[in-house]
Amino acid sequence: MHEQLSAMLRTHPQPQTTFDPAALAACLDACLECSAVCTACADACLGEREHLAHLVRCVRLNLDCADICAATGRILSRLTEADQGVLRAQLQACVATCRACGDECTNHAQHMNMVHCAVCAESCRRCEAACTRLLGSVTA
Amino acid sequence: MHEQLSAMLRTHPQPQTTFDPAALAACLDACLECSAVCTACADACLGEREHLAHLVRCVRLNLDCADICAATGRILSRLTEADQGVLRAQLQACVATCRACGDECTNHAQHMNMVHCAVCAESCRRCEAACTRLLGSVTA
Amino acid sequence: MHEQLSAMLRTHPQPQTTFDPAALAACLDACLECSAVCTACADACLGEREHLAHLVRCVRLNLDCADICAATGRILSRLTEADQGVLRAQLQACVATCRACGDECTNHAQHMNMVHCAVCAESCRRCEAACTRLLGSVTA
Amino acid sequence: MHEQLSAMLRTHPQPQTTFDPAALAACLDACLECSAVCTACADACLGEREHLAHLVRCVRLNLDCADICAATGRILSRLTEADQGVLRAQLQACVATCRACGDECTNHAQHMNMVHCAVCAESCRRCEAACTRLLGSVTA
Repeated sequence: MHEQLSAMLRTHPQPQTTFDPAALAACLDACLECSAVCTACADACLGEREHLAHLVRCVRLNLDCADICAATGRILSRLTEADQGVLRAQLQACVATCRACGDECTNHAQHMNMVHCAVCAESCRRCEAACTRLLGSVTA
Repeated sequence: MHEQLSAMLRTHPQPQTTFDPAALAACLDACLECSAVCTACADACLGEREHLAHLVRCVRLNLDCADICAATGRILSRLTEADQGVLRAQLQACVATCRACGDECTNHAQHMNMVHCAVCAESCRRCEAACTRLLGSVTA
Repeated sequence: MHEQLSAMLRTHPQPQTTFDPAALAACLDACLECSAVCTACADACLGEREHLAHLVRCVRLNLDCADICAATGRILSRLTEADQGVLRAQLQACVATCRACGDECTNHAQHMNMVHCAVCAESCRRCEAACTRLLGSVTA
Repeated sequence: MHEQLSAMLRTHPQPQTTFDPAALAACLDACLECSAVCTACADACLGEREHLAHLVRCVRLNLDCADICAATGRILSRLTEADQGVLRAQLQACVATCRACGDECTNHAQHMNMVHCAVCAESCRRCEAACTRLLGSVTA
C-alpha cells in the first residue's frame, strides 16, 4: 500500500471500528490498484488493433470495474460516520464486478494470449478476495 | 432527461434488451442528478458555519452517495455487452446509499430547517425509486 | 438544467461571487451533460462492430472528455471557498478536451455518418462554449 | 508504484512516445496516491470536531484535488492515441490544484499541528513535482 495512504489511516482523528484495520488497508489498496489497472486494460485492449472485435466485452467490463472500484476505494477512504449498510452493499457490488471482469480477462489471457489481460485478471482476483474478506471482518 | 443523453440511447448501434427503455432512461437521469445534487449538498453543508458540527454525517453520506450514483450512472450509460449481475449489484448498492443519504437529509430538513437538505432528500428518493423500479424491470 | 441542481445553487448558505450565476449554472449543466454523453458515445463506438477499428481515437477522447468534464462539473458544484486559480486551470483543461473530442466526433459524424458522434459533438461544443464563457465571466 | 500498474504500462500493445516512460510512471503513481490521500484528508478534517470550522477551505480543496488528480491519473493510464493538447492542459490543472491544496495543508500542518494535513501536503508536493516534470518531458 502507498505509505502516505496508510499514514492517513493512522493519523485520522476518529478511530474506525467497523473493520479489521489490516483488512481495510488491504482492501482499499486493492480497490485503487484494480481501478487503475482496469482503466489501463481497457486502453490496452483498444490498442489491440487486430483483436479489438473480440475484446469489446472486455473493454466494457474493464470500464465498469474501473468505475465501481474507484467508488468503493473512495468510500473505504472515509472513516468518519461510516454507514455499514452502504459499505456492505458497495463491497458486494465490487465483488460481483471484479469477478465478472476477472473471468473475462482470464479468458482472453488463456485463449488469446493477452498479457495485459493476465495482469488485469490478477488485480481483479486480488480485489475480489480483499472485498470478500472485508465483508467478513465487519466488527459489528 | 437531458435531450442529448436520450438521443445517445436512441442512436446506439446495439439494441439494449436488459431493461425497459423508459425505466432505464429515468434511472440514468436520476443517478446523474443525484450525484450532482449530493456533491452540491456536501458543499452547502460545509457552508453552514454555525451548524457544521451537526452535519458531519450528512456530508459523509453525501460524498458516498455522489460517488456511488456517479458510478451507477456511468454503468447505465453503457449498453454494449451489459453484465446483468454487475448491473443488479450496483443498482442495489445505489438503492441502499440513496436511502441512507435521503434519510439523513430528510432529518436535517425537518429538524434543522436545512432547505438544501430537503432538495437533496428529494433527489435521493427519486433515485432510490428509479433504481428499485429498474431492478424490477429486468427483461431477463 | 436539472431543477434540483439549480435549487441547490439557490439555497446554498454562502453566496458565490466568483462567477456570473447564469453562466455558472449553464456551465455546470453542460459539463454534466457532456460527461454523460461522452461516456455513452464511447460505448456506442464500441458497439459499431464493423467500424470499430476507425473509432479507436474517438473512444479514447470520449473517455478522457468524460473524466475531465465530470471533474469540472464537481468542482463547479462547490461554491464554498472556491480557489480561482484551480477553477481557471480546470476550465481551460475542459475547453481543450471538449474541443479535441468535438473535432474528432464531428469528423466521424461527417465522414462515417455516425449519428451518435454528431450528438456527442454537439454536447462537446456546448460545453466548450460554456466553459469559455465562464472563464470570461469571472467577477474578480 | 503498484507493480501491476507498471506491468500494464509495459505490456501495452502500442508504444507510447509522448512521455519519458519513467516520468510517466512516476506521475501516474503520484496522481493516484494524491487523489486517494486527498479523499482521506477531507474525511480526516471532517473528523476534527473541535477544529472543523477552520478546516472548511481545506476540505473543499481536498475534494477538488481528489477529483482533478483522479481524472489526470485516468488520462495518463491511457496510452492509445494520446492527444498532447489534452494531456498538457490537464497536467497544468493538476499542478495548479496540487499547489493550492498543498499550500493549504502545509498551513494547517504548521499552525494547527494537523498531522494528516502534513501527510497530505507531502502527497500534493510530490504530485505537483511529478506533473511539472512530465510537462517538461514531452518527447515531441
